[in-house]
Amino acid sequence: MKLFCTNCGRKEDFKPQHSRCPECGEPLEVELVTKGIIHKERYGFSYLERYRDFYPFLEPEKLFLLGEGNTPLIDCGLVAEKLGFTPATLFLKNESANPTWSFKDRGTVICANFAHKHGYQYIGVVSAGNNAASCGAYASGLGMKTFVFVPDNIPEEKILPITVYGSTVVVKVEGDYSAIYPISKALESKYGVYFANSDVPCRVEGTKSIAFELCEQMNFNPPEWLLIPTGSGGDLRGVEKGFREFKAVGLIDRIPNIVAVQSEGCCPMVKAYEAGNETITHFGSYETIAKGSANPFPPSGNQVLRLIKQRRVNRAVSVKETDILPFQKLMAQAGVFGQPASCMGFAAAKKLLDEGIIKPGERVVALVTSTGLKVTSVLSKEAKYEVYQEKLEKLDELMEKLV
Amino acid sequence: MKLFCTNCGRKEDFKPQHSRCPECGEPLEVELVTKGIIHKERYGFSYLERYRDFYPFLEPEKLFLLGEGNTPLIDCGLVAEKLGFTPATLFLKNESANPTWSFKDRGTVICANFAHKHGYQYIGVVSAGNNAASCGAYASGLGMKTFVFVPDNIPEEKILPITVYGSTVVVKVEGDYSAIYPISKALESKYGVYFANSDVPCRVEGTKSIAFELCEQMNFNPPEWLLIPTGSGGDLRGVEKGFREFKAVGLIDRIPNIVAVQSEGCCPMVKAYEAGNETITHFGSYETIAKGSANPFPPSGNQVLRLIKQRRVNRAVSVKETDILPFQKLMAQAGVFGQPASCMGFAAAKKLLDEGIIKPGERVVALVTSTGLKVTSVLSKEAKYEVYQEKLEKLDELMEKLV
Repeated sequence: MKLFCTNCGRKEDFKPQHSRCPECGEPLEVELVTKGIIHKERYGFSYLERYRDFYPFLEPEKLFLLGEGNTPLIDCGLVAEKLGFTPATLFLKNESANPTWSFKDRGTVICANFAHKHGYQYIGVVSAGNNAASCGAYASGLGMKTFVFVPDNIPEEKILPITVYGSTVVVKVEGDYSAIYPISKALESKYGVYFANSDVPCRVEGTKSIAFELCEQMNFNPPEWLLIPTGSGGDLRGVEKGFREFKAVGLIDRIPNIVAVQSEGCCPMVKAYEAGNETITHFGSYETIAKGSANPFPPSGNQVLRLIKQRRVNRAVSVKETDILPFQKLMAQAGVFGQPASCMGFAAAKKLLDEGIIKPGERVVALVTSTGLKVTSVLSKEAKYEVYQEKLEKLDELMEKLV
Repeated sequence: MKLFCTNCGRKEDFKPQHSRCPECGEPLEVELVTKGIIHKERYGFSYLERYRDFYPFLEPEKLFLLGEGNTPLIDCGLVAEKLGFTPATLFLKNESANPTWSFKDRGTVICANFAHKHGYQYIGVVSAGNNAASCGAYASGLGMKTFVFVPDNIPEEKILPITVYGSTVVVKVEGDYSAIYPISKALESKYGVYFANSDVPCRVEGTKSIAFELCEQMNFNPPEWLLIPTGSGGDLRGVEKGFREFKAVGLIDRIPNIVAVQSEGCCPMVKAYEAGNETITHFGSYETIAKGSANPFPPSGNQVLRLIKQRRVNRAVSVKETDILPFQKLMAQAGVFGQPASCMGFAAAKKLLDEGIIKPGERVVALVTSTGLKVTSVLSKEAKYEVYQEKLEKLDELMEKLV
């Protein structure tokens, strides 16, 4: 298989070290798969078995797998009606049911196995969150080491859950953390560290499987709308590509309206889209509660703008900072507790419904990218719950008051 | 369907309020399903759709579901070899990939829907952990309220993740927390609160699905050994019943050697089993790091002893307190980060292998009951990770030293 440049079309060999075009600097992508079927023999395993025809560059029998993917699609039920949606039209794709509880596992399983197959001993990752934990888990399983580059002011409690897999070396970086992306590419070739960054071709390939599963879960009649919290843009690219491949092989005949969702506090794509620009401008310093997907200068930003121009992605929208925690709460009432960045698709669904862009009766899926358990610190700000204290022998009297 | 007493065989109607025998006080259980097939039409939904024939007391189209079950089975790979197991014989069933990240969701989905169907507005739960969060999620989705009874000394940070679903009223109980189980039964009938405690018939039914999935994932050739962290005994009963039903319908012809695993710090079942007793004695005050499954007076303890006597369960074993965190670490190296109680099955596998009880080449599955993210406080005690700090422009030099 070949890689091609998403901008200028130049072709490259598909090797771990190739991720950006040496001519124009834009992201490379694996060529489209146009032949394949779904393999249903085995139940309850990785998406890489079920959809293996769409990953011809891997050898399925030699992979280290953690059962990634195969996540639930939830009907929001009572909460959907409360928000004004037609019953049974608002759904959550709950990616927190992945092995390290975020959608990152879908891409990491490919990054780690592909790098391992090509002789790499080290995985690198610029992340203090989902991606770091995910890389740690897969690298350990493959006997590799992970270098995690984190900001130097990171609290200890955030480091622990990402180092628990045992393979991780933490590097605290002093200076402009957002400038590390280009540096990581230089370290990659020099020291043989495969950087499983957020929009490398392997990761984009993994995220395709979200689209595959959605097609199956909706009986090959995809939703009208799909809302995706978007940071670097790589994951959105993967989902879009997944639908395109299922269309190419004849499994679906229509692709949903895909929406890139960012928070107002860090929304470089939305800014560029609304200004009609063809390239992303650095957002500058930012503050957002949706830290999990905040990227002031997204490496796949220009490609997302191109996708919108080509009408393969519908639009980019922002949600208010002050909406994020309330929508986290609402989403939890539907049974899914996501981290703040995860709730932006859900918040955007309501916004687009109110604006008349989403029409009543159209089916909407919001992607929930990661578990709320990873960012419990935000809960204390918003937490309001009924609490009572009573002696064991007086519980009876208390209950009489409460029910 | 009828309930029957696990001890004296007395029959009762299957209603939410029936959970213990009015004659002998022992747990009631739903009668065995002996006819059924697996429904494979839809992909990626709740186990309750796939195995609906084994839940004839529910109406599948009317349920509130969160995509519970359908969790991965992981080959421990390099870690298994390190521990001395034959390659590809040690597996983890990762229950942290459930909607609220523990195996409790399998039982709760039945408890909540069954209670709702019978007109209950309230769910009660005696838990400050997995069960409380799980009940909160399902109760919210069904528009019900959850009363969570917790010890009065519970830290605030433990309350937040269980109240996030919005339906939860917290009741802090002063006095002997372990004495609340019988009191809860009295409150149930008086105030119409359905207590989704750890061994009610509905919960046992839900846990059957772990056995169903294991059978499918192992191609209807179940493992020789299955190790289950055991507190109240209800979940172990469910898994055993699941295998029995698949055998009754002809899907398997053999049931694994099931092992109940407890921590030395709180192991009333192991104590009774080793002493040859037929009933459980209260363990008294206890201290264990495996809090998630600690129960000093397990309500299904006598029934577990009967199951061992009937050779339907193989044995009960304890693991050392000092083994639990090291095995948590080892398990994470295989890619699965479980809470301390979750790692006991894995630790016991090694113990039984070393003792010659598990023979080389026999296939072993350890059940991982819940995510390590819920109990990150234990990490700081054990945490050792490599950490470096460097200026952005000097990362190159640092990497030269590290690789």
